[in-house]
Amino acid sequence: MSNICEILAVGTEILLGDIINTDAAYIAGRLAALGFSSYRQSVIGDNDGRLCDAIREAFGRADILILTGGLGPTCDDITKTSVAEVFGLPLEMHEKTKEDIEAFFRKRNRVMTENNLAQAMIPKDAVVFANDWGTAPGVAVTGIPLGMAEEKTAIMLPGPPSECEPMFTERVEPWLAARSGFTIHSLNLHLYGIGESGAEAILRPIMEESRNPTVAPYACEHEVRIRITAKGETVEECRRLCEAMAERVAATEAGQYIYTRSETPWEAKNAIVLKLIDSLRQHGKTVAAAESCTAGMFCSRIGDIPGASDILLGGVVSYANEVKENILGVPGEILRTVGAVSEPCAAKMAEGVRRITGADIAVSVTGIAGPGGGTPEKPVGTVCFGLADEKGTVTETVQFGYKSDRAKIRRLTVARAMMNIIRRLEER
Amino acid sequence: MSNICEILAVGTEILLGDIINTDAAYIAGRLAALGFSSYRQSVIGDNDGRLCDAIREAFGRADILILTGGLGPTCDDITKTSVAEVFGLPLEMHEKTKEDIEAFFRKRNRVMTENNLAQAMIPKDAVVFANDWGTAPGVAVTGIPLGMAEEKTAIMLPGPPSECEPMFTERVEPWLAARSGFTIHSLNLHLYGIGESGAEAILRPIMEESRNPTVAPYACEHEVRIRITAKGETVEECRRLCEAMAERVAATEAGQYIYTRSETPWEAKNAIVLKLIDSLRQHGKTVAAAESCTAGMFCSRIGDIPGASDILLGGVVSYANEVKENILGVPGEILRTVGAVSEPCAAKMAEGVRRITGADIAVSVTGIAGPGGGTPEKPVGTVCFGLADEKGTVTETVQFGYKSDRAKIRRLTVARAMMNIIRRLEER
Repeated sequence: MSNICEILAVGTEILLGDIINTDAAYIAGRLAALGFSSYRQSVIGDNDGRLCDAIREAFGRADILILTGGLGPTCDDITKTSVAEVFGLPLEMHEKTKEDIEAFFRKRNRVMTENNLAQAMIPKDAVVFANDWGTAPGVAVTGIPLGMAEEKTAIMLPGPPSECEPMFTERVEPWLAARSGFTIHSLNLHLYGIGESGAEAILRPIMEESRNPTVAPYACEHEVRIRITAKGETVEECRRLCEAMAERVAATEAGQYIYTRSETPWEAKNAIVLKLIDSLRQHGKTVAAAESCTAGMFCSRIGDIPGASDILLGGVVSYANEVKENILGVPGEILRTVGAVSEPCAAKMAEGVRRITGADIAVSVTGIAGPGGGTPEKPVGTVCFGLADEKGTVTETVQFGYKSDRAKIRRLTVARAMMNIIRRLEER
Repeated sequence: MSNICEILAVGTEILLGDIINTDAAYIAGRLAALGFSSYRQSVIGDNDGRLCDAIREAFGRADILILTGGLGPTCDDITKTSVAEVFGLPLEMHEKTKEDIEAFFRKRNRVMTENNLAQAMIPKDAVVFANDWGTAPGVAVTGIPLGMAEEKTAIMLPGPPSECEPMFTERVEPWLAARSGFTIHSLNLHLYGIGESGAEAILRPIMEESRNPTVAPYACEHEVRIRITAKGETVEECRRLCEAMAERVAATEAGQYIYTRSETPWEAKNAIVLKLIDSLRQHGKTVAAAESCTAGMFCSRIGDIPGASDILLGGVVSYANEVKENILGVPGEILRTVGAVSEPCAAKMAEGVRRITGADIAVSVTGIAGPGGGTPEKPVGTVCFGLADEKGTVTETVQFGYKSDRAKIRRLTVARAMMNIIRRLEER
């Protein structure tokens, strides 16, 4: 059995653009970490014929096919029947699953309908992965598909990410791990303040000569990541290779932009906020925020991380000018003269929220996220930042508007406010 | 030329799970709205051979292939060269694009590197879509691929969603629209308080007998949507068909759970918050929130919607007990006896934030999002809600913990708090 996998999502709602296929990204990241190669992902609608074709095609390229979705209780859920058809297997009632589904509905005090029991029909002799996060169990079928010569494996998981993700990690990974003879490990370096092509211009010689580990830059919304990926027999060996390469990258001109590193997709996605929390903890400082255009997103991003209550005291969402004035103590004079989107206002917001929460460091953001509200002097994307701590108050104005929409301006604003704190703490 | 499209994303970072393929969902939604059929989406890594194979395979099934990603300035960006190879076309420097790229860097005061100019190399005689949101232009090639008999079209767009989405809407849609002889229109009904299988049990007879429009339920995290999709010659004709079906659905037992409707993916994703803003406006009321476990997410979700400043005054993120006490005025006695996660605390939080902001309606949430912090009496997922308005204060405790993680508990909490306001306003 080789290590080549494919991921196939089943669902017309994905083809219609109604839901985003996050399952594929999650599973792909885990497969890479386990040392499986994955050269293709596909999405097929709820159509038996096309699904059977796509399964057969995938088995022409890969040995392990992971299917997500189409295991639900409704009549357009066709994954199990299609896989059974490709392998030439009948479906049978799986008694343990039937009991689990009945128990699930009892626990929730909800009425079970007959179609829920269709979820307990399983291809003959398949491996069943119990679902502790929903009703449809996962199923794995290993065998020689009709008309083929080699053994193939199809693994079916429910589509909702809140079920698919833990099912993969808790059920499928241990089952797959034994099959993989090698492992892959990645380390991301996170750079703030440089673009993708700038980073590549510096790192091109390293990228071109490096085969193991490989080095690749890629652009995220607010930062550039340098991904270092090593292949080896053990995680320790891979880690050593990655570490040596990280030191090489850090010694280049690009090194000055590196603000943190990450290993998992979750760490990568949350790199700035994790670095912020870590910096605050190391310096024994608490934080608070006064937010206007971001409307709570700064605090909420910290709240995304479990256990952040030791460093986040709270904040004030001051959307209305009255809230800026009455709760944060911004002088009405400032609001009437230079306006809410100004550095004097940002300074008073930061000082105000620091005073009323008692935080060591307070930040403020007030800006024009658009699409309306821009003026020639303060176009959409103008954001004023304040930071107040025991050393005093600093402010800056940044223009995020060029080629950005409302959502992006707000996310860039949160990232910038967090980087401002990280850098302020490093100054000490 | 038929109306069958496929979407093919190019990028090893998607296969490794580092980024989620949101472009496919966006484009798929738009294609459906334009009346194009789409039976498959795929993802391929940055490998010339596999990409050329995938392009040829897609052209065996579809007439229009939309490729995203792989147009960047780095050496692993291979989309244009692969498409040119499939069509047997040379690449040529496109002067207008070269000037645009130079202007982009001048405007941003950033240094252009030589590899940026590779973005101006275009397959001979291709259509170029100017990119006002980044540097890589979009490209469309129409012709007979080598070894094929029929005319095919490949449309290439940059991968970053902040470029891909407006490029598709502003540049590609007008170009494609003329090719489509019919149109498709969808209407979503949003249901709160019933599960997918419950909704399907009620609607099964309608679903089975309906061909145009079709009716399909699907489960989202906090709600069930019933999607009604009609095909016809004009949008007006489709709308009439959808409207008649929506009335049929509303007349069933499921009708009582419908709280709003939506047409676009953006409206669908934001259905609760759009309904909340609409209800507040209709009643001429303002809102504020005191948030503990959601840490600003309630306010931030309202801030996602442009122009919500007429109804959102602001709020307080009261992560620390001191903030609950000092800013919101929750009596220390309550925090010491029944604790922060309690209905008395929620009541005082809502009343406190209503008092200090002057909002007409104020809500509060205080709960245990986990994974830590649970107790046998208050397990993870326990959330207390408060709502204060001129009629008085009401509270409730909800248990979201069953099969939910921290992020999901926080999102379900925000949805519930919003539904509580919507229903309170309907009571009047």
